Amino acid sequence: MTAPSNGPTNGSSNASVLIGPVEVVGTGLIGTSIALACRRAGLEVLLTDAAADHVRTASGLGAGRPRAEEDVPQLVVVAVPPDALGAAIRAALDAAGPDTYVTDVGSVKGAPLDAVAGHPAAARYVGSHPMAGTEHSGPLTANAALFDGRPWAITPAHGASPAATALVDALVRLCGAVPVMLPPGDHDRAVARTSHVPHLMASLVAGTLAGAAPDHLALSGTGIRDVTRVAGGDPALYSQIIGANTDAVADLLTEVRQRLDLVLEAVREGDRVGLESLLAYGQAGTRAIPGKHGGAPQTMVPVRVAVPDHPGELARLFADAGASGVNIEDVRIDHDPGRPVGLVELDVVEGTAEVLREALESRGWTTHR
Amino acid sequence: MTAPSNGPTNGSSNASVLIGPVEVVGTGLIGTSIALACRRAGLEVLLTDAAADHVRTASGLGAGRPRAEEDVPQLVVVAVPPDALGAAIRAALDAAGPDTYVTDVGSVKGAPLDAVAGHPAAARYVGSHPMAGTEHSGPLTANAALFDGRPWAITPAHGASPAATALVDALVRLCGAVPVMLPPGDHDRAVARTSHVPHLMASLVAGTLAGAAPDHLALSGTGIRDVTRVAGGDPALYSQIIGANTDAVADLLTEVRQRLDLVLEAVREGDRVGLESLLAYGQAGTRAIPGKHGGAPQTMVPVRVAVPDHPGELARLFADAGASGVNIEDVRIDHDPGRPVGLVELDVVEGTAEVLREALESRGWTTHR
Repeated sequence: MTAPSNGPTNGSSNASVLIGPVEVVGTGLIGTSIALACRRAGLEVLLTDAAADHVRTASGLGAGRPRAEEDVPQLVVVAVPPDALGAAIRAALDAAGPDTYVTDVGSVKGAPLDAVAGHPAAARYVGSHPMAGTEHSGPLTANAALFDGRPWAITPAHGASPAATALVDALVRLCGAVPVMLPPGDHDRAVARTSHVPHLMASLVAGTLAGAAPDHLALSGTGIRDVTRVAGGDPALYSQIIGANTDAVADLLTEVRQRLDLVLEAVREGDRVGLESLLAYGQAGTRAIPGKHGGAPQTMVPVRVAVPDHPGELARLFADAGASGVNIEDVRIDHDPGRPVGLVELDVVEGTAEVLREALESRGWTTHR
Repeated sequence: MTAPSNGPTNGSSNASVLIGPVEVVGTGLIGTSIALACRRAGLEVLLTDAAADHVRTASGLGAGRPRAEEDVPQLVVVAVPPDALGAAIRAALDAAGPDTYVTDVGSVKGAPLDAVAGHPAAARYVGSHPMAGTEHSGPLTANAALFDGRPWAITPAHGASPAATALVDALVRLCGAVPVMLPPGDHDRAVARTSHVPHLMASLVAGTLAGAAPDHLALSGTGIRDVTRVAGGDPALYSQIIGANTDAVADLLTEVRQRLDLVLEAVREGDRVGLESLLAYGQAGTRAIPGKHGGAPQTMVPVRVAVPDHPGELARLFADAGASGVNIEDVRIDHDPGRPVGLVELDVVEGTAEVLREALESRGWTTHR
């Protein structure tokens, strides 16, 4: 395991070695998954939740035992819903002795920081945010493998204790995730860009479909499905998440609105050159998203295959694709209405598409570009 | 094969039976694919293209023969780039005898109609638009199966000859596609909604990534990839397509801009209730997209499976999924940076998820919700 390029250095003290106990406050999907990962690593885990039956369920899953009054956790992980975060982090700091550190896993980092400002133990809090979905479905959905290979932001404020940062870094690695060190404000601007504003824009597009004529929507292809997919998420949860990051979201959304005005002007005036340049700017943006496994972005080429729409055919396709030795980087199944034969798109790294296409054709599949 | 609910009725004359020859003007992906589908059905196909080598290539693929001066096509299919459509349709009508009908396959239907307005043979033109991708890659990428099960809009104007509409309907069915009858203006408003505005919005989101800090983009998950995927398309082609549909796009984009102002206001003022209601409106919109095969929208549930990222594992997964008897409706592979184990999401119809999950767990897979 390699050290993060901008990670903390371990001092000579033992304070930065995660030995437990770890207390998990909030035994939903994220909290219980962290608890399971800690148990998997042999740490003692203490469980706390406003709902006693959640603690019982999580205990029953082997995620730890209910916290007792006299327990002294080394690290408290606060994993409660966004609106309850600030108070729960303060409460954890209130209860913490001198050897207890606190983190949280909320999707926004500025707001909880404001909540601990001025607290005498504030230096022993360092925020974090695992990029592992936002489902909110209780301990039964938890899994120790939830964070495998995921980015997990660690966001020490000025004046945060290096020991606190080191313990959170150790927790992230123990969960199998990849630490990404960012100042709290940078984190919130980053997720506004990679998550909150995209969600709002997807929601705006999806809103244009509500109440549209069904024979118009019959022309829907894969594009509109991709663009609007995230907008299917729980409005109550996302209004909490986005509502906790209003400054960064409003700033970026204001920029987007200005650019939308340029697009609208170019469309109204039939300015093809302006329109093409705005579209080219967007195309360049799609290439800025990091490639798989954090590597440089790679050019993917789709190989399209007609596949009968019943169980077993996909297995046959992937068996034949696997035999070609070409790695499939992404898959899409085409859902166009009325399609008795599915169209499956296999994305592969440029240069390997022809190998895959020939391998599939030789086994009787019909492919096209 | 069933008749379309709002399709043409065949008269006693033979004019509405597609017997050929079919002339294809423009032997790119779409044109050559139509030619191949017609040849597959045993029709004579005549090929025309400004680029003589494209005609030779298409002929070599078995798509038909070059048109000769004395040939009299029954149906001319104009399949040239958007900006060349109007002139090419007029030219086809100029050359058409009394028994020749004309259609086109352009992505916008109002503009070509304007181009034929007042032409003495205008009644013998009926526009159409297959929903089969917008790649623009020449005859070599063509495939007779390109249109299998796809929606294909047919857009007769007022005063269009029923025989012309019937011939286009016959062509659509011969290509294996599903006819969707719409007035031209309705079609253009429909694709503004299902394709052009979503494309522009995706491009705006993608534009916010251009030039962003790489350590911020390290937090990118699957959501931002889904939202921006279509923005990777060719800016030159999309500026032509959208530039030919400015009225419908500007109208809808103006609506979206107004709603964006509401979102921005709700974010700036921290109005959670307003934000949640705007998000709920978007969520409702995602449910308006027709389900697979044109059926009622179905609720899909994701089953998430951890999969080692190398060839063969996907095949094993789909073999095990296939053995469960549960049909996989959609697939996504998670690309989060740094992930050594891929996360595959299998979407299945609600109620079958538990069956699939148990089947996969019993074969050693780790699943989570």
